[in-house]
Amino acid sequence: MNTGKSMTIILHSGDLDKALAGFILATGAAAKGIDTTMFFTFWGLMVVKKGGPGKSKLSKMNMGGLGTSWMKKVMKKKNVATLEELIKDAKELGVRLIACEMTMDLMGVPKDSLMPEVTEIGGVGTYLDFASKSNINLFI
Amino acid sequence: MNTGKSMTIILHSGDLDKALAGFILATGAAAKGIDTTMFFTFWGLMVVKKGGPGKSKLSKMNMGGLGTSWMKKVMKKKNVATLEELIKDAKELGVRLIACEMTMDLMGVPKDSLMPEVTEIGGVGTYLDFASKSNINLFI
Amino acid sequence: MNTGKSMTIILHSGDLDKALAGFILATGAAAKGIDTTMFFTFWGLMVVKKGGPGKSKLSKMNMGGLGTSWMKKVMKKKNVATLEELIKDAKELGVRLIACEMTMDLMGVPKDSLMPEVTEIGGVGTYLDFASKSNINLFI
Repeated sequence: MNTGKSMTIILHSGDLDKALAGFILATGAAAKGIDTTMFFTFWGLMVVKKGGPGKSKLSKMNMGGLGTSWMKKVMKKKNVATLEELIKDAKELGVRLIACEMTMDLMGVPKDSLMPEVTEIGGVGTYLDFASKSNINLFI
Repeated sequence: MNTGKSMTIILHSGDLDKALAGFILATGAAAKGIDTTMFFTFWGLMVVKKGGPGKSKLSKMNMGGLGTSWMKKVMKKKNVATLEELIKDAKELGVRLIACEMTMDLMGVPKDSLMPEVTEIGGVGTYLDFASKSNINLFI
Repeated sequence: MNTGKSMTIILHSGDLDKALAGFILATGAAAKGIDTTMFFTFWGLMVVKKGGPGKSKLSKMNMGGLGTSWMKKVMKKKNVATLEELIKDAKELGVRLIACEMTMDLMGVPKDSLMPEVTEIGGVGTYLDFASKSNINLFI
């Protein structure tokens, strides 16, 4: 299934709720036949480091009494995929996962510390090439 | 007036300044004849709960000495619409207000706890259908 | 070089990492021949006040042990441009830098307190005119 549509997402945030939103959008799009690319920059790169998904925390810890561990319990009970599962799903659905080269250099993150699902490295030029041809471009 | 243009906004944040930005953009677009759709996910859903708009707080409380109550006073003095007024304006101008089904389920938010302006419920598929046909897609 | 492509960025955040991301994207796009416009709203307007770029701080101070002064040292060592340099580069590359009129009014920011690189003032209508004709529209 190929719709001829495409989407890019820059995941700049390392917050659990924003990373979840990014991967729910990316997997939903890929499942609908939308060609999808994710770029991981700044704190967002931490999400796709080995062991990274489990470390993400909610951006608002106390709002409405919700905390990270509470959210994870509810997600499990409601059968919502975890961040780890969503990253694997994204890869299986063909989402392109690209690590930001400048962030890797700045934060001292070597290629082999990234999850195996992240197979590409690119810069702002790579991102702009995809985004300028895409229907949906989000910065999260 | 119909320009043939369209816009979607995902309001993920529950911060007052970001919610204001979202509704100022949405009402401005609708007033210009741009077909506009807003999706309320995660903390953004709290903004459109009954009694929710009044609870939103600035994302940066102390930057430049600005606080939430100070901002509200200045907005009143400058005749800028409140968040409550902007939500009503958006509805009147024809902005589509859609609550995220997964967030409602995760956070235990029933339909009747939402403001009456929010008449639709949808998932990521609903969002992607609108976004893939829109000229402007923002994640706030 | 003109690609016929265009991009808009709303810089709403005053965080150093988000402002850097915005200007790295804008200068990268302009250097590739993409017509680029930045709008500075809310905290993002503070970034382009005289003396503002040096005051921006990271959105997450302690994540991974990274702090603002540490980040600035690493950026210098790695020859990454500072925020001040990026603002000047953006202007030289032809990026349109527009201050949000409502934010200026709300926060009491007069025109002459803005950096000289910010030569235009506009409202939501100005933004929507550019965005509805652009290929990439980001809210940062």
